[in-house]
Amino acid sequence: MPGNRQIIVRGRPTCIPQAEHFELVDGNMPFAGAGEILIRNLFLSVDPAMRGWLADTSNYSQPIAIGSVMRSLAVGEVVESNAPAFAAGERVMGWFGWQQFAATTPDAVIRKVEDRDLSPSLALGVLGLNGVTALLGLEKVARPTAGDTVVVSTAAGAVGSAVGQIAKLLGCRTVGITGGAEKLAICRDEFGYDVAIDYQAPGLDQALANVCPQGANVYFDNTAGPISDTVYRNLALHARVVTCGTASVSSWNPVPTGPRIERIVMTRRAQIGGFVVLDYMDEFQPAGARLAQWVREGKLKYREEIVDGIENCPGAIADLYEGRNLGKRLIRLV
Amino acid sequence: MPGNRQIIVRGRPTCIPQAEHFELVDGNMPFAGAGEILIRNLFLSVDPAMRGWLADTSNYSQPIAIGSVMRSLAVGEVVESNAPAFAAGERVMGWFGWQQFAATTPDAVIRKVEDRDLSPSLALGVLGLNGVTALLGLEKVARPTAGDTVVVSTAAGAVGSAVGQIAKLLGCRTVGITGGAEKLAICRDEFGYDVAIDYQAPGLDQALANVCPQGANVYFDNTAGPISDTVYRNLALHARVVTCGTASVSSWNPVPTGPRIERIVMTRRAQIGGFVVLDYMDEFQPAGARLAQWVREGKLKYREEIVDGIENCPGAIADLYEGRNLGKRLIRLV
Repeated sequence: MPGNRQIIVRGRPTCIPQAEHFELVDGNMPFAGAGEILIRNLFLSVDPAMRGWLADTSNYSQPIAIGSVMRSLAVGEVVESNAPAFAAGERVMGWFGWQQFAATTPDAVIRKVEDRDLSPSLALGVLGLNGVTALLGLEKVARPTAGDTVVVSTAAGAVGSAVGQIAKLLGCRTVGITGGAEKLAICRDEFGYDVAIDYQAPGLDQALANVCPQGANVYFDNTAGPISDTVYRNLALHARVVTCGTASVSSWNPVPTGPRIERIVMTRRAQIGGFVVLDYMDEFQPAGARLAQWVREGKLKYREEIVDGIENCPGAIADLYEGRNLGKRLIRLV
Repeated sequence: MPGNRQIIVRGRPTCIPQAEHFELVDGNMPFAGAGEILIRNLFLSVDPAMRGWLADTSNYSQPIAIGSVMRSLAVGEVVESNAPAFAAGERVMGWFGWQQFAATTPDAVIRKVEDRDLSPSLALGVLGLNGVTALLGLEKVARPTAGDTVVVSTAAGAVGSAVGQIAKLLGCRTVGITGGAEKLAICRDEFGYDVAIDYQAPGLDQALANVCPQGANVYFDNTAGPISDTVYRNLALHARVVTCGTASVSSWNPVPTGPRIERIVMTRRAQIGGFVVLDYMDEFQPAGARLAQWVREGKLKYREEIVDGIENCPGAIADLYEGRNLGKRLIRLV
């Protein structure tokens, strides 16, 4: 009988989670109890948000207990079902954790993955957490209208690249901020940004002012930190800011300082809204369907960086924060 | 023939405007040209926002030119009218400047002051800039619902005291932050705050956490600075922040630093909105009428600090920023 390889949380990181905060163990093969389903994971997700889930300071979800399987979204196949709504062979996306097999009640499932013409991995990226974050962050908080200038940080990332393309589909002008020549080229050539700016080059303030002479109407912020400070200085009157991630801040303990934004917020009548996609679980299915249609039509491009083997999970979060990845980071198990 | 005493702007302050930035001069008596009205000012307003109007850095209005009459709201009486909509003897509130007489086109008038049972001075305070800021800042940005905990900074001030009372009228629990024993007592006894906290006493963070165990649902921010930092740390999930003033920040050049708020904004899904009442000029008349009704019913209390004589204008803004005033600061001319 096969075992169940799992990644267990062994330490609570104060900054970015590193490989040493996890341990790969051989668990027992689980089975589906009454009302449960047994899932074989196909792909495991690696997300920047995992830093927050692991932190013991205030977050939007309970911190993950030391000694438990690392919390993660995954896409898998139902192997056995004791729940009437699921049948063996169906594909599902949900909270199945960094492990090969998960036995769970149906409430861990976020949605069924029925787009058999598309790779199931997309349900974790452009049709999942990242794409839905981009779509609903724009629609719920940014509310862009055609002609708006939309500035995106981590513009080449899994969320940012979707934000840029969806904003473009909505008739906006898109400005992507990213780091390095390779990502700049990807932003322009692949994700269709009208302008891409390298934050690693000197003169970000001036560069942004040059390309947004009327200011940014929308700022989709995945970074916080100095990049955001620059964009705030370039906000247009009545600008909307989506505060969606803090990739540029390596530690929140102690809380880092930055320029105060109150005067900008007041004089420009800016509106800033925090966005956490997990508030919109009920909208994953319809949002995913809209995104899938754009993918099929070639209007929404994505990149995946797939690594084989669960043993690569522990170091994968730190990689994201070093900006080394060029696409949604996934661990393939099967 | 009488002259027209006027306060002229002579210097551009980098911090808080002081008496030396102004000069009292004896101007010629103006007259109403074609289509114009001649107004004799009864009361001149003194507002914290004047700092921003005088600054040469980005603001929501054009900086006041050196050598011109200080921009100000005032309430006055029409002495002579060449405009069909106005008649001699009517009272009006508008942009008449720090001077005894103003000859102007009707577009300087914000509204007629027809509540003859109430002092015309109220059109500058609780029924004017301050009261309308409180009412519309709450309604447009904060959107409180009954049962919400509403935290107000400068709680005893002209805006803050109206915010606290209106929030209470809307069924909210109100927490006022102010400085010193006298203002604390006024907040509790006169403006009906459920709790008043002294920011000058040690332990503001803990005091606020104690009185807002579930966090603040609304924060009406008139201060920025360390008081706001404390309130941000105590925001409830889905809190709304009205960024309305920056009284605690003495200079924005260079921009002061403070703790970054992105993580709080994101994890609590906070919504922050800048508010400038001058965006809502069309709503002054109906908002003023609603406020007047509350005043008549004794549900909305106010304090005025009236000083006689235009010669007291130059030092009046600095006084506001020292927190010495206990009520709306007005200069009475007649």
